[in-house]
Amino acid sequence: MTDVSPLARPFPALPAISGVTPRVARAHYKTWDRCDLTYVELSEGTTVAGVFTRNVCCSTEVEMGRESAALGKARALVVNAGNSNAFTGFRGREAVEQICDQVAAHLGCTPSDVFVSSTGVIGVPLPKDKAREGVAAALAAEPCSWETAAETIGTTDTFAKGATSSAMIGGTKVQLAGIIKGSGMIAPDMATMLGYIFTDAAIAPALLQQMLSAANKRSFSCITVDSDTSTSDTVLVFATGKAGNVPLVSMDDPGADAFQAALDDICLQLAHLVVRDGEGAQKFIEIEVTGAVSDASARKIGLSVANSPLVKTAIAGEDANWGRVVMAVGKAGEPADRDKLAIRFADKWVAQAGLAVDSYDEAPITAHLKGQDIRIGVDLGLGEGRATVWTCDLTHGYISINADYRS
Amino acid sequence: MTDVSPLARPFPALPAISGVTPRVARAHYKTWDRCDLTYVELSEGTTVAGVFTRNVCCSTEVEMGRESAALGKARALVVNAGNSNAFTGFRGREAVEQICDQVAAHLGCTPSDVFVSSTGVIGVPLPKDKAREGVAAALAAEPCSWETAAETIGTTDTFAKGATSSAMIGGTKVQLAGIIKGSGMIAPDMATMLGYIFTDAAIAPALLQQMLSAANKRSFSCITVDSDTSTSDTVLVFATGKAGNVPLVSMDDPGADAFQAALDDICLQLAHLVVRDGEGAQKFIEIEVTGAVSDASARKIGLSVANSPLVKTAIAGEDANWGRVVMAVGKAGEPADRDKLAIRFADKWVAQAGLAVDSYDEAPITAHLKGQDIRIGVDLGLGEGRATVWTCDLTHGYISINADYRS
Repeated sequence: MTDVSPLARPFPALPAISGVTPRVARAHYKTWDRCDLTYVELSEGTTVAGVFTRNVCCSTEVEMGRESAALGKARALVVNAGNSNAFTGFRGREAVEQICDQVAAHLGCTPSDVFVSSTGVIGVPLPKDKAREGVAAALAAEPCSWETAAETIGTTDTFAKGATSSAMIGGTKVQLAGIIKGSGMIAPDMATMLGYIFTDAAIAPALLQQMLSAANKRSFSCITVDSDTSTSDTVLVFATGKAGNVPLVSMDDPGADAFQAALDDICLQLAHLVVRDGEGAQKFIEIEVTGAVSDASARKIGLSVANSPLVKTAIAGEDANWGRVVMAVGKAGEPADRDKLAIRFADKWVAQAGLAVDSYDEAPITAHLKGQDIRIGVDLGLGEGRATVWTCDLTHGYISINADYRS
Repeated sequence: MTDVSPLARPFPALPAISGVTPRVARAHYKTWDRCDLTYVELSEGTTVAGVFTRNVCCSTEVEMGRESAALGKARALVVNAGNSNAFTGFRGREAVEQICDQVAAHLGCTPSDVFVSSTGVIGVPLPKDKAREGVAAALAAEPCSWETAAETIGTTDTFAKGATSSAMIGGTKVQLAGIIKGSGMIAPDMATMLGYIFTDAAIAPALLQQMLSAANKRSFSCITVDSDTSTSDTVLVFATGKAGNVPLVSMDDPGADAFQAALDDICLQLAHLVVRDGEGAQKFIEIEVTGAVSDASARKIGLSVANSPLVKTAIAGEDANWGRVVMAVGKAGEPADRDKLAIRFADKWVAQAGLAVDSYDEAPITAHLKGQDIRIGVDLGLGEGRATVWTCDLTHGYISINADYRS
């Protein structure tokens, strides 16, 4: 296990969500001394929405999860850690179907009510016997804490990640609790990593999907660790309806805006935690792009900066090398005018109108770069488009972790 | 100075090109003990063609070079090392205009006959006084060897890079000599880095441009070190016409095919040398993509693999983690069918039809990965599109060089 990320956050106090019961067990997917199978039971009537990787070489879990999420109902979630089961063909599919069948038989539901995720090494079929025994052990296990569940879904993660938020729907308070894992192969394209959000709110599946897609666009789709889009990325929201609110079916319903805000909030918290556990990360970097021709253009420019190895290594080196930001803006393939471009670190503009500011003083920039939380601003001077994206620096730690991952 | 790349090649014997005279001098752009200004004089009647970065934040040198190349004639080339003069606004432009004027006055030509390139740190205007004295010193210097010129255009390069080729046009032998520099911020988009090719052939500028664009597509546009596209990338070909061949004006002329082949050859040699001097490179990686829906699609998929930090770190770690190749194919945004995809290392297929081959034996793959020259094959199984791209691995050396570049 690597050392805990210097950007780690303590696991917060998460509320119990009525209708949601997590359990963990040891499936021994790898020769490690830890739980590696998480099972979350959901009460009858739970609705679900999901966003998934757009990597065309996605795993069976993603394919089946996408189909099942479209049906809108859920009874259980199973998460395997240590083996992604991606690119394993029919053998991998058989293992996932076996898990769905086993859980469905136990709960008396249909297999499509069971959602399975797996992360870890690509190309090794999930061993069916280990999965069967692991699921059986989890079904018989005592309920566990959110923190234990968050630890158990992790792989190269260095700390357990969770978040909570709440909203009032009519006169009813609804709660949200979420857990998530990273922490390499993170460049969400529509969705990212494995993230699970549970709420006791009652929400129709179509609306839940609409809300999750909107929240995802402003959170998971705006982070990157290493520009590599995983084959297994999945974010699911489960709504048990146990809070007893009048069920939400449209954005016009009272309380829908409040729930959207709470969902946005928890998604952003979880997304930030993934960046904070980016492989080898020493610095948390926020890149705010303004003045682009559109929000979509701003996001592409932001991600071009966030994915630039030269920008990321400069931040790692605490080097105010803003020219690399200029380069990354210019290579994004989006409208930009060199002579209108402005760059800032924290709140200090270092370059404006195509060249360094006259009074450029590097001292306050360098002081800012010595901190853990780095803020870069890019103003295109072209329009009203804006986006904020988040990433971490690129360090020797990333190389060490990834040049030696499988062995 | 970093250690010489383990992938370095000795500087080859390059022929003198009639009508081409290189000289070098010290402009003292940085506090270093080396020549950092290269001046190449070209005989009257020299034609020129160029390809340039598509980074929209390109340098003044690139802007002016693009305009001058369109005029098709050249008398001199000046290359500054240690300062890219990019993103320096009107101050940077004044410095380049001064250089062009100074050389034009000396040669009695127009300023647009003088081509200037600069690489190094972005955002610091090229100091005009140093440039003036450096150019004056170079104009008065003794002619130098190709190797000295190749050394002098370098910045973070660890070895001097040059190549040669030749062709028969009618009964006349024409020769080509080229020098090039890298070695970070290398992800050519139309052109790359600073590369200069000199030939004594007589070729009309429009045809020369057409030939260079074609050669570029198969060479410089198919390499990447770190996915970061420079603001200064430039490749120029100068043809003095001193060989005395019947001037080529169209691809239908006798000898045009032979010259295209010689130009392709020298461009590919130079492109490979840049990869071999990629920052921190320990391995030279060739990625051959076949079975794509088009050649363009194959190139995009190849570059997605070549730019993946997880693929590059796996190769650095000599780890046969082919699942990362699958991931990188899947994230490319190009047509791919997971269940038709096949991956090989060297000539050994490791995965076919969407899963590991039955008889998969990692031993020969691991042996291949211990070598310096790594070959990866990707077959999409969809069509006839193919491309080959080249890159290097991502190592601690890259982090060390780039986290500490400016200081």
